Amino acid sequence: MKFGGTSMAGTERIRRVANIVRRQQAAGHEVAVVVSAMAGETDRLVTFCREANALYDPAEYDVVVAAGEQITAGLLALTLQAMGCKARSWLGWQLPVRTDDAHAKARIESIDSAALLASMAAGEIAVIPGFQGLSPQGRVTTLGRGGSDTSAVAVAAAVRADRCDIYTDVDGVYTTDPRIVAKARKLEYVTYEEMLELASVGSKVLQTRSVSLAMKEGVRVQVLSSFIDDDAPPADNLPGTMIVSDEELARIQGDLEMESQLITGIAADKNEAKVTLTRIADRPGAVATIFGPLAAANINVDMIIQNVAKDKGETDVTFTVTRADLARTQAMLEAQQEAIGYFRMIADSKVAKVSVVGVGMRSHAGVAATMFRALADRGINIQAISTSEIKTSVLIDEDETELAVRVLHTAYGMDAE
Amino acid sequence: MKFGGTSMAGTERIRRVANIVRRQQAAGHEVAVVVSAMAGETDRLVTFCREANALYDPAEYDVVVAAGEQITAGLLALTLQAMGCKARSWLGWQLPVRTDDAHAKARIESIDSAALLASMAAGEIAVIPGFQGLSPQGRVTTLGRGGSDTSAVAVAAAVRADRCDIYTDVDGVYTTDPRIVAKARKLEYVTYEEMLELASVGSKVLQTRSVSLAMKEGVRVQVLSSFIDDDAPPADNLPGTMIVSDEELARIQGDLEMESQLITGIAADKNEAKVTLTRIADRPGAVATIFGPLAAANINVDMIIQNVAKDKGETDVTFTVTRADLARTQAMLEAQQEAIGYFRMIADSKVAKVSVVGVGMRSHAGVAATMFRALADRGINIQAISTSEIKTSVLIDEDETELAVRVLHTAYGMDAE
Repeated sequence: MKFGGTSMAGTERIRRVANIVRRQQAAGHEVAVVVSAMAGETDRLVTFCREANALYDPAEYDVVVAAGEQITAGLLALTLQAMGCKARSWLGWQLPVRTDDAHAKARIESIDSAALLASMAAGEIAVIPGFQGLSPQGRVTTLGRGGSDTSAVAVAAAVRADRCDIYTDVDGVYTTDPRIVAKARKLEYVTYEEMLELASVGSKVLQTRSVSLAMKEGVRVQVLSSFIDDDAPPADNLPGTMIVSDEELARIQGDLEMESQLITGIAADKNEAKVTLTRIADRPGAVATIFGPLAAANINVDMIIQNVAKDKGETDVTFTVTRADLARTQAMLEAQQEAIGYFRMIADSKVAKVSVVGVGMRSHAGVAATMFRALADRGINIQAISTSEIKTSVLIDEDETELAVRVLHTAYGMDAE
Repeated sequence: MKFGGTSMAGTERIRRVANIVRRQQAAGHEVAVVVSAMAGETDRLVTFCREANALYDPAEYDVVVAAGEQITAGLLALTLQAMGCKARSWLGWQLPVRTDDAHAKARIESIDSAALLASMAAGEIAVIPGFQGLSPQGRVTTLGRGGSDTSAVAVAAAVRADRCDIYTDVDGVYTTDPRIVAKARKLEYVTYEEMLELASVGSKVLQTRSVSLAMKEGVRVQVLSSFIDDDAPPADNLPGTMIVSDEELARIQGDLEMESQLITGIAADKNEAKVTLTRIADRPGAVATIFGPLAAANINVDMIIQNVAKDKGETDVTFTVTRADLARTQAMLEAQQEAIGYFRMIADSKVAKVSVVGVGMRSHAGVAATMFRALADRGINIQAISTSEIKTSVLIDEDETELAVRVLHTAYGMDAE
């Protein structure tokens, strides 16, 4: 079970969390709980670090910010004890949660589960601060913002848990953002790959790394709401969304004789910016002169469209980067204008990427065609297209984002009755 | 060097601390720094624990409250780095600071100094969170409130430091409380034993345990102010008060041809309550029936006066306890009235203990006589007397405390010119 910062914000909320945990144990489970810091606490500690040293040493930054989860872990153990449960905290260095030494963005390498399993088998609820680990040099590490989801999945993998329940401020994964489409439906199941595609295009229910890890380790993850009544059914009744493998989903669909869903969800991402370089010489190596330097500068390029040569062996190249990287991208390309040999650079940050995601795409043709026709019928202009095995994305004018999501939600027959 | 919570309260103050530390290193020293949590932070964390679980498990309490010092240790290391110094934090479990497993009031057993010494020899300033340690079971412990002074002395002993400088909100140890006696003088030197007597009777400059440890380990401790200007002389010029052994003091006094001081300081303690049991049978074992049960209940009895038998083989017994223990003491003795066999119990919490302290007492007669005469001359009634080798204490009416301290300060010739 994993609880985020909103759920842990203050002793009253921690009491609600403890009650959910207690009932899970009472239902016959051995339980480990991973907790975030109180909402706002990590920001407070990060601000201290910035004030102390603008170019902070990430090793000491980790010492400071890891304290937030240490506090909530101790407090949840105390609260569970007050309810009559046996409970104890296990700090990152105590288990230990072994990571590499990339401070402030460390990756978990292994978790020693022996002591944890013995404690749980003895009826103790294990409370583990998320986000933190131990480097090979014996120093405190943290996993980067949102790392507690990854901690939870890693612990679940280490103890071979039946399930990793991630309690959030939403009650599951939806076909699309319910704030945009009122008829969005909560999904009972979604595959790891679908979840990754939905996460990477702006559906921020889970940290992407945690989903990758769950897929690699085969951890069944349930997303569900922490804002539940004391008499709500226990989490075993799967009130949230289960994230599972393709194989498990196929089995479930077979068992339930469910209609295989073509499209699982629709995501929108307004964090894109578009750059077009015009009249580039259409010769081998031209594209490498653009993207080589960007990759070296750690600028991630998403969609890339190269038109066929128009005339005189010249072509236009369009690509997208995150808005945060746009200024650096422009500066870099301006400096390289001669080397690349383009005529003009046109930048546009008023764009959005809308994606339809679903494992059903693999076996069904025509999914993209439906998308293009539905958008065209409403006069929405497509500026670029990219596809993967289970995703089709289009770049459109930012102002048309919500309209496009609603149109597509209806076009794929996903609207709730 | 050790800095308390007021000095560490916020990044601006931590910058002042870092500057003091930096200058100490620049003066040619290898430096380790022990820090407290930000003022108010430990209280905040303790409140969380109480809210979570009124009867809290001290092992989990330690996990929560140790976070405060972890945060300031990381922040001071970051701030020193921002000033161009090499610095790193060493948490209690990293050195480790080995303690017993008496959670929330643990005692330090040993500190592994090898890694610390190597780091300091390489020019790194070591920053160590006070108050925290590691139990034999591998869990976080804390030393009890004010434990950072003890941490500092223990670290100084482990690395065989030339000096342990404790920076506080006062600039040294005074002959008495300067708020009571304007003419109080700052002492250049005081012995461990004198400091212990002054601390135990209400002079709260240092935690008593830290002084005992310094005496046991022979650590030279300097108390000095953290509120110094950036261009103040470095701490090597001994601007504060040095706490040293009898032998070192004798040598210094010989070297400087100083007049040996008869009395070092005068302390007042308003935390006393007086209990008198009247007409107890003057027979062997009578006193044991009073103090046995109190000791068993962990109630500390300070002064004890038994009058000579008056008549009919009966006597009165008077003793003092702390005011916090008075109600429990009364309840316990009431329940035991028959067993003890006293006539009446009279309790009075409007008393104060005033003490004169000095190693010079050992070799000089008449110190106590001077005290009694000076108080009598001003009509101050002495209710009880107790003495140790280097201390004479009297119990008086609480309202006369300040007057008594001033009278004695003058009587022993301690007033500053």
